[in-house]
Amino acid sequence: MPIDLRLDAEEVPLLIDLYELTMAASYFALGMNGPASFGLSVRRTPPRRGFLVAAGLERVLEALEQFHFGPAAIEYLDSLKLFSPEFLAFLAAIRFTGDVHALPEGTIFFAGEPILEVHAPLIEAQLLETIVINQIAMASMTASKAARCVIAARGRRLVDFGLRRSHGADAGLIAARSSYLAGFVGSSNVLAGRRYGIPLYGTMAHSYVMAHESEPEAFDHFATMFPQLSTLLADTYDTVRGVENAARIARQLKDRGFKLQAVRLDSGDLADLSVRARRILDQHGLTDVAIFASGNLDELRIAELLRAGAPIDAFGVGTEMAVSADAPTLEAAYKLGEYNGAPRLKTSPGKTSLPGRQQLFRAFNPAGGCYADLIGLADEGTTTVAHEFKPAPHTVTAMLTPQMAAGLPVASRPTLAESRDRLLGALAVLGPRYKDLERPDIYPVRTTAALNALATTARLRAEKRQV
Amino acid sequence: MPIDLRLDAEEVPLLIDLYELTMAASYFALGMNGPASFGLSVRRTPPRRGFLVAAGLERVLEALEQFHFGPAAIEYLDSLKLFSPEFLAFLAAIRFTGDVHALPEGTIFFAGEPILEVHAPLIEAQLLETIVINQIAMASMTASKAARCVIAARGRRLVDFGLRRSHGADAGLIAARSSYLAGFVGSSNVLAGRRYGIPLYGTMAHSYVMAHESEPEAFDHFATMFPQLSTLLADTYDTVRGVENAARIARQLKDRGFKLQAVRLDSGDLADLSVRARRILDQHGLTDVAIFASGNLDELRIAELLRAGAPIDAFGVGTEMAVSADAPTLEAAYKLGEYNGAPRLKTSPGKTSLPGRQQLFRAFNPAGGCYADLIGLADEGTTTVAHEFKPAPHTVTAMLTPQMAAGLPVASRPTLAESRDRLLGALAVLGPRYKDLERPDIYPVRTTAALNALATTARLRAEKRQV
Repeated sequence: MPIDLRLDAEEVPLLIDLYELTMAASYFALGMNGPASFGLSVRRTPPRRGFLVAAGLERVLEALEQFHFGPAAIEYLDSLKLFSPEFLAFLAAIRFTGDVHALPEGTIFFAGEPILEVHAPLIEAQLLETIVINQIAMASMTASKAARCVIAARGRRLVDFGLRRSHGADAGLIAARSSYLAGFVGSSNVLAGRRYGIPLYGTMAHSYVMAHESEPEAFDHFATMFPQLSTLLADTYDTVRGVENAARIARQLKDRGFKLQAVRLDSGDLADLSVRARRILDQHGLTDVAIFASGNLDELRIAELLRAGAPIDAFGVGTEMAVSADAPTLEAAYKLGEYNGAPRLKTSPGKTSLPGRQQLFRAFNPAGGCYADLIGLADEGTTTVAHEFKPAPHTVTAMLTPQMAAGLPVASRPTLAESRDRLLGALAVLGPRYKDLERPDIYPVRTTAALNALATTARLRAEKRQV
Repeated sequence: MPIDLRLDAEEVPLLIDLYELTMAASYFALGMNGPASFGLSVRRTPPRRGFLVAAGLERVLEALEQFHFGPAAIEYLDSLKLFSPEFLAFLAAIRFTGDVHALPEGTIFFAGEPILEVHAPLIEAQLLETIVINQIAMASMTASKAARCVIAARGRRLVDFGLRRSHGADAGLIAARSSYLAGFVGSSNVLAGRRYGIPLYGTMAHSYVMAHESEPEAFDHFATMFPQLSTLLADTYDTVRGVENAARIARQLKDRGFKLQAVRLDSGDLADLSVRARRILDQHGLTDVAIFASGNLDELRIAELLRAGAPIDAFGVGTEMAVSADAPTLEAAYKLGEYNGAPRLKTSPGKTSLPGRQQLFRAFNPAGGCYADLIGLADEGTTTVAHEFKPAPHTVTAMLTPQMAAGLPVASRPTLAESRDRLLGALAVLGPRYKDLERPDIYPVRTTAALNALATTARLRAEKRQV
């Protein structure tokens, strides 16, 4: 049995929890397949986060457009001896025919808010639950973490080094794409470069230095091979001597008309070592050779280094961003809000959901910064909702926009670069108190009067649903 | 540009950091491609872990066997304008021709120990770095976390519910396979069921109850559809009333000769609710209906529930296991130990590596339990090394075994079920003090006299490598 790193197209719909299929089989047998509305939201903000960043939508839309159970998938499901031939025939014919409204990639959002809504026949909408959560949560989690690193770096360049410590192949691709979306300048992940057009970075590992008889020889060999783009890794043995060796090579390159890009420090006291490295480089007249730092860095460490005045020009960020190490999960849930035109909610302790088809309304000030959100109903207008914001907004925007209609993505899709620019613009005007890395203010998110009224009705109705 | 959940076979070798390719290009230009030995180890044990569990090897071997850069990959690399046509032609012809020694899947191991060694021409061995770390670290991390859950559950059944909160598609598959390896009884992940033959579990979500007009109607519909294997989810609205509704359905099933499998509790105070649910079921004469608990559970919470006497028969474990939430990364490193017959090491602060080709020796007592490990050299014999263990061992085993020779996996591969049995056997005889979930003892791992001597020599030599 192959256990394969590959993931074939026909396997994608089987990335599903069994219960979605048993529920679907029951709905099919009961003839329950009316219009349903499901909403995706994140229940709680992870610690220290003042905002989150939406990502993963483009890939989910692609998966929905291509969604179908092929013959091999149906054959496997048949082998489970759980499903009738009629249901399996129905399943084989299913395509996604619904509508999707969502926050475009790179949109700032907050806990509790709807980030994606699916309107489709009940069975179709239910079958998507796992893949939607799996993809959007991971992509948004890493985009959010990466955005924090970008804030911490205050203009210094950031490169994704996360592939090796990512949770498998797919996670490495998602983290590379999400971190680029959030403002990183590139990635070491070659497949991410190929797939997403992300600039690639990387030169040498310690093993390169170790495989050579001496460090100067290794540096010389590398610089000869790549005179235009070498970054020399200085900490295989003694770091300060490593920087001195790199500086000598940089001068030789300079004499030949080339430029060493950077010296990389990957261990030890980076604040101290970067100062010493800067001094050595400057003494050699190499003021234009950058200092690149890496090694278990996250946004707090980056902020601390820069506060301490460390003369670091660029950071490689791996593990901490790629697994969002201090908060390695977003508690995303995909909940039924409406079935057959009637609102639905659950009242489980600590997990109460909101009923109805929803919309997210955001109030902006004249400078284009957002300052409050209202979760409302999909059929409320921005003009009506505007009266519920205080102070009165300059503009109100309905943030969930049509992404897919009758199973097809809306024609004009943003490029990754466009989404990146839009996010960086929005982050620039977001209030600094929400961007604080340690003790951010809680962004005001409330529900509209109309949604509150519907929730009250639905809650009363829910109480009668147990008898 | 497709952004695809699929991962094509030709994309797998591009799951690589750019620096491996730039180093390879330099080695190729220099004619440096002698025999190299790289070793994979985990630098530090995550907090509270008394042991780790090796996993991911079978998939890595499959990837190495199939490793090659196809035309599309070469074309992309050419487009980067970094590599010569000669190097790209060389790359296109590369296959993995080396040897691999490793801990079989399901082997217990500890920080600092070699878990996989690659012996191959330098370029081949270097190109594997990222994929080896990426796969083995994630699989071993989740197997280790799942093994802790198995210890905590003291015989109760555990099911993997992690797919939705896993970091992407690949992570969900790895977590399902690793948790089964560690003793879980199955998974909700349908693709994992298909690929690995893992038993599948799952019945209904809250949305199933919410889509119906009433909870009793939902339970009745489901039980009619699946009279033999229903688990009814009781906490959509009020949990106690939900259990009462489930009990009524269970009695109806019983009268028809069927059995309700379980009632599932997914929120609230599980210790209290499980006692109340047990009482209700027993009052209805349903002593054989199990209680299944889920909802943000990890090994500590499971242990706490069982200590409190919660009558829970099975646990669904999702997020916390699948992302190893309290320690979402293993600090795995793949380091050059030997090149052209000479030992190599790095002396970076806090990241010093061990030189040479290594072997892991484990001492066992007469009961078959291990009590100490020695990291030694590959050519040391177990009889010689036995004298370095105190007290004298009953047996000593060389734990790294041949897995791949000249690019081909050794003929007889263990099945997942065999690896699982072997691990459960080893865990049963592992000293309880290493299985403590909160304050485990540190298992004794030292280096042999021969490896110490080599490290001293290599360190002296390293000091001279900077001039």
